[in-house]
Amino acid sequence: MKSYREELWFNIPSRRAFINITPNVEAALRKSGIREGIVLVNAMHITASVFINDDEHGLHHDYEVWLESLAPHEPIRKYRHNDTGEDNADAHLKRQVMGREVVVAITDGKLDFGPWEQIFYGEFDGRRKKRVLVKIIGE
Amino acid sequence: MKSYREELWFNIPSRRAFINITPNVEAALRKSGIREGIVLVNAMHITASVFINDDEHGLHHDYEVWLESLAPHEPIRKYRHNDTGEDNADAHLKRQVMGREVVVAITDGKLDFGPWEQIFYGEFDGRRKKRVLVKIIGE
Amino acid sequence: MKSYREELWFNIPSRRAFINITPNVEAALRKSGIREGIVLVNAMHITASVFINDDEHGLHHDYEVWLESLAPHEPIRKYRHNDTGEDNADAHLKRQVMGREVVVAITDGKLDFGPWEQIFYGEFDGRRKKRVLVKIIGE
Repeated sequence: MKSYREELWFNIPSRRAFINITPNVEAALRKSGIREGIVLVNAMHITASVFINDDEHGLHHDYEVWLESLAPHEPIRKYRHNDTGEDNADAHLKRQVMGREVVVAITDGKLDFGPWEQIFYGEFDGRRKKRVLVKIIGE
Repeated sequence: MKSYREELWFNIPSRRAFINITPNVEAALRKSGIREGIVLVNAMHITASVFINDDEHGLHHDYEVWLESLAPHEPIRKYRHNDTGEDNADAHLKRQVMGREVVVAITDGKLDFGPWEQIFYGEFDGRRKKRVLVKIIGE
Repeated sequence: MKSYREELWFNIPSRRAFINITPNVEAALRKSGIREGIVLVNAMHITASVFINDDEHGLHHDYEVWLESLAPHEPIRKYRHNDTGEDNADAHLKRQVMGREVVVAITDGKLDFGPWEQIFYGEFDGRRKKRVLVKIIGE
């Protein structure tokens, strides 16, 4: 069994954003030399997500509006977590809806994807350096 | 390390449905000959889910009602994604709640499940051909 | 490829709770002797979750309030699943938001975590014995 590890770093200038990281994961896969196996891609921070969906900006707008309706950022004082001095309790909630990680099959040296699948980094509390882990195991 | 890959195809006649695919995954596992490892089961489409829960039709009704309340199909025009000509923005949202994939342990050649765990395909925008990927790695 | 399997047992005295199981997973990893690979940690029951987030009690209070607003326990009769004699339909819904499982990378014999990542068992229908599966594969 071979394994390969790489970190992707982000410093998103806004509080929230969706970034297509599929090319970064594909580049890591090429470097790994692994042809059969799986790749785990996970946010290493608990106010961010990694998820798979469509690279369509209208949809990303819909996610933003929808997540804000499910877990509003304000009022800040509504959340006990924010008593710690943070203002990011909503980000911890939004991340649960969108998920921490994806596991993708590797077949013949490629991400084994359907026609529209793309991997996104979902930032819900940006303006600081944060990381995504890419871990590949296989042969 | 051995690996095995199979696609399950669906063409659900309604917009939404939940289909128990546990027997399909068990059949793939038998064909693989793998006794120890993991199986990844994921929707290859971004308006569908694979998830694990109870095979109880009352619960499936509750999921349907609940998901519709969290991410209503209508009004269609509420969603920017639907400006592309689609009417399935809600399906992209519902899929995030229910999840894209499951990873299940394989022990002694069997899905290593608790007493009620069953794997479901969740369709949120049917009436077209769609696929689920079963990828097994192990020994 | 090596594999290791362990069950963690719980009997939570309340209906709902969040329990930090990171030390249990780390102990299983040490017993496994595996240095490179992945660990799957999943609830074996369908009214419980395994998820990764912050070990901060204010946040756990926020999750409790938020999940209750998204999928209220009462009125019991609102859910068809409860026609079976159960009163836990809401627990099946809450579990979908928080997730069934996590997959964590293992690097140099350790859980490959960001600074605040901790693994939690989320109980949504306690007062009975329930299990979490820890399955490790690698070398």
